[in-house]
Amino acid sequence: MDISEKQPETGGIAADRLRSLVDRIERLEEERKALGNDIKDIYGEAKSAGFDVKVLRQLIRMRKQEAAEIEEQETLLDLYRRALGM
Amino acid sequence: MDISEKQPETGGIAADRLRSLVDRIERLEEERKALGNDIKDIYGEAKSAGFDVKVLRQLIRMRKQEAAEIEEQETLLDLYRRALGM
Repeated sequence: MDISEKQPETGGIAADRLRSLVDRIERLEEERKALGNDIKDIYGEAKSAGFDVKVLRQLIRMRKQEAAEIEEQETLLDLYRRALGM
Repeated sequence: MDISEKQPETGGIAADRLRSLVDRIERLEEERKALGNDIKDIYGEAKSAGFDVKVLRQLIRMRKQEAAEIEEQETLLDLYRRALGM
């Protein structure tokens, strides 16, 4: 079978490969969007339960920040300990 | 059992409910982050395969835009048809 029948005017581009990459990216982006909607729903649920959404968002941010700081300090501690042969 | 033992100093906040909401949000945000990493990996794979990542990103954006436009036009078409009793 002539390859040009399956991939007309691709200009030297591996069209099937490109299509596969695009499909995979779009599928994952849709999943990510769905997760974003799920998260939004939970904030809505929190609001219904009487929690202040703005404060809740800040709380989540602070927890993320603290987790990052703890990880950073642990990495440094590990580095210092190895420097001292501990 | 004294409730204050389980939820000390909650200042009238339903701490268990709050904790559950925070847990669910953080779990979903982690999944979302993992998806973001998966997407990044595919772009890396595309780059290795010789595709220009910037152009690929633009392509994905254009497809999303076109999908949104088609959906908008279909909504309008539906509205117009109903207005004419079609």
